[in-house]
Amino acid sequence: MNNKNKEKNKVNPRIPSGFLELLPADQIQFNKMLDKIRAMYERFGFTPIETPALEFTEIILAKGGGETDKQVYRVNKEGDDLSLHFDLTVPLARYVAQHYENLTFPFRRYQIQKVWRGERKQRGRFREFYQCDIDVIGSDNIIIDAEIPSVIYSVFKELGFDDFTIRINNRKVLNGFLGELGLINSSKIVLRAVDKIEKQGEKAVKEELVENGISEENINKILRFIKITGSKAEIISQLKSLNVRNSLFTRGLDEIQAVSEYIKSFGVPDGYYEVDLTIARGLDYYTGTVYETVLNKYPEVGSVCSGGRFDDLAEYYTDKKLPGVGISIGLTRLFFKLKEAGLIKSGQATPTKVLIVRTKEEFLEKCLETATFLRQGGVNTEIYFQVEKMGKQFKYANQLGIPFVVVIGEEEVLQNKVSIKNMKSGEQKIISLDLVIPEIRK
Amino acid sequence: MNNKNKEKNKVNPRIPSGFLELLPADQIQFNKMLDKIRAMYERFGFTPIETPALEFTEIILAKGGGETDKQVYRVNKEGDDLSLHFDLTVPLARYVAQHYENLTFPFRRYQIQKVWRGERKQRGRFREFYQCDIDVIGSDNIIIDAEIPSVIYSVFKELGFDDFTIRINNRKVLNGFLGELGLINSSKIVLRAVDKIEKQGEKAVKEELVENGISEENINKILRFIKITGSKAEIISQLKSLNVRNSLFTRGLDEIQAVSEYIKSFGVPDGYYEVDLTIARGLDYYTGTVYETVLNKYPEVGSVCSGGRFDDLAEYYTDKKLPGVGISIGLTRLFFKLKEAGLIKSGQATPTKVLIVRTKEEFLEKCLETATFLRQGGVNTEIYFQVEKMGKQFKYANQLGIPFVVVIGEEEVLQNKVSIKNMKSGEQKIISLDLVIPEIRK
Repeated sequence: MNNKNKEKNKVNPRIPSGFLELLPADQIQFNKMLDKIRAMYERFGFTPIETPALEFTEIILAKGGGETDKQVYRVNKEGDDLSLHFDLTVPLARYVAQHYENLTFPFRRYQIQKVWRGERKQRGRFREFYQCDIDVIGSDNIIIDAEIPSVIYSVFKELGFDDFTIRINNRKVLNGFLGELGLINSSKIVLRAVDKIEKQGEKAVKEELVENGISEENINKILRFIKITGSKAEIISQLKSLNVRNSLFTRGLDEIQAVSEYIKSFGVPDGYYEVDLTIARGLDYYTGTVYETVLNKYPEVGSVCSGGRFDDLAEYYTDKKLPGVGISIGLTRLFFKLKEAGLIKSGQATPTKVLIVRTKEEFLEKCLETATFLRQGGVNTEIYFQVEKMGKQFKYANQLGIPFVVVIGEEEVLQNKVSIKNMKSGEQKIISLDLVIPEIRK
Repeated sequence: MNNKNKEKNKVNPRIPSGFLELLPADQIQFNKMLDKIRAMYERFGFTPIETPALEFTEIILAKGGGETDKQVYRVNKEGDDLSLHFDLTVPLARYVAQHYENLTFPFRRYQIQKVWRGERKQRGRFREFYQCDIDVIGSDNIIIDAEIPSVIYSVFKELGFDDFTIRINNRKVLNGFLGELGLINSSKIVLRAVDKIEKQGEKAVKEELVENGISEENINKILRFIKITGSKAEIISQLKSLNVRNSLFTRGLDEIQAVSEYIKSFGVPDGYYEVDLTIARGLDYYTGTVYETVLNKYPEVGSVCSGGRFDDLAEYYTDKKLPGVGISIGLTRLFFKLKEAGLIKSGQATPTKVLIVRTKEEFLEKCLETATFLRQGGVNTEIYFQVEKMGKQFKYANQLGIPFVVVIGEEEVLQNKVSIKNMKSGEQKIISLDLVIPEIRK
């Protein structure tokens, strides 16, 4: 390409649809949420890992089937058939299988990375989005199934949410119930159908089950079953009264009961979790406890944190049997929905706490000394280098939402002090430099 | 794919070559470096942005030419011709052009993301790596050219380096000198050749220049020119004594002089920067000051932080003329080289500060209370849920490098206290729960 020829033919600056890009003020809010999630994951002793964005396609699609194969972004490069990961669970499975000898189990890992899915174009659906995952691998201890909701609780509290519910179910209960009805081989079909009840209603579920050849009698039993509601105790007692003898069902019931009781010990208040027999999580790899989390005031957002227990994480890559349990927060979508609902308060468009304005060429040295002093004191500081009218420099501070402006002018230099202006209150005073940091921290 | 058939044919768990994947202990060290860079960028008032990993190929390759076109990872998806970004400068240019109306200039942004390049396979060359970039866009104020080295200085100090040199040059000086020789149209060729002098020596540079038809006389002048060394003052005085009248040269010389003087005011000690006329930075978009940074004890690592000033960032996407200056740290490569040199001390394989061991089933409640108390006090805490021999639980703590173990046994419960063991010193004591945090912080 010839630069001269290009000059008039600019390439239109834009990004592909389904990708989210933020202006600085929003990016700062996004990063704050991400930092809080990360800090809370570490608070619970999860350790970070990061995997390449590109993996061999045969790894990414080892399980195969479903929507995934079509959605994956594939890249052929120098004879390597690679794909961008579409979740963090497959890379985790590969990682654990590959590095098994160098890991200590139970392996508590967190992973916060972008994933890519060529989803159908639709508002609020993203093709590139952050997942924030935790998993505990290598233990089937049911207490961990109760610890996970306590992490969800702590994270969402930390993010500033007050009104949310963690819905808990157990795949064994529904599968055991289906076993009792002689429908165990249709369990995937039934799970997928049941998963839709909240969004599409009973009629749609019924139709889908009819289409799949489930008998009228069994459909009614299934619908009655998933319509069991009430408090945790009530649901458990209703499940018991069904007198199902299937052993999977019995184990599932025991697990739900154990998880419900342990969660209390983990300090999650009663109103923040419930048993919900409709939670099935369409993905077929869950084998025990499953979770969804909803913001009660924003049900249209759907589940903001989901996951569950699986018997065998890495079966496609190793003979080692690795049970585990985990959850994922889809942060990009959550952020987008909160923003839409007006819940993201964009503040500053910069991390700068203090802008130093330069009133005269010869005060540069003073400005630099002041900046270095503040930075060494841990204050994010910026200098407006161009000697321009004060008004223009203050406008810059205002546009970026910088909370304090320090002015070094004739008078200040004479007194060996600085002026500091609180941009919110408008208050301004002349103080000595070593009082600036306490002033800001007030 | 049928799951049953796959069972015996496991997919070999591995990652593509040229991709770096770390075990948790190293990942923690990597993240610490990344956090320090990020915090220091914010300390200087740079604001975060993040751009999609995938962009339209016509954006990514708008400039075109060079190695880039071949190295780019291209993805075709539903009619969109997309590419993974190979640096963060092109996405920045597109971002600034696209969001121009919503940004405040000078725009000080930092961006820390992975980039992808299908480089030739070679040890220490990565196809996926982190770049940590800062740029100031929309100002041609030369003071910023001096601020940038002060950021480099602060970042590398913060990362724990003591012995490094920021090498500074100015493209205008060399280009002006070439203008004087009547070689301005060969400047790209000469720059590329000169860039190789440190790695390949004078002979290789000479040969390359001969091949490109530069006369013997001019080659000798060029080599004499780039062999000018000494202190900043000496180099500047030698450059002056060349009596070059080319105006570009004169401006460049003024700029070098200004930058050298300002850097001092920014508090960068004299030993940490020098003028080096061999620094050309092969990329042809730099137009003024250029930087490289070397770790003096590890010259083989090459430049760990490079950049420069450019006249027109986004010329392919907008008519707006946007001068700027910036640098990039290639963190993945830096980390890898430091690791090879034995300079990365892997410590803990988890962020956990306290492991609570569970000696008896019935102490679960106590363990959970203790964990919640510690977590609320900001201590990363983990519980070993499985009731197993103390030895096994301590071994787990040891393997992960967890510094403190809290034991809750019969005796402790009786006294309403806990035992805390410092895993490094071996010291153990029984104390009340509220003394645990002060004990850890000691």
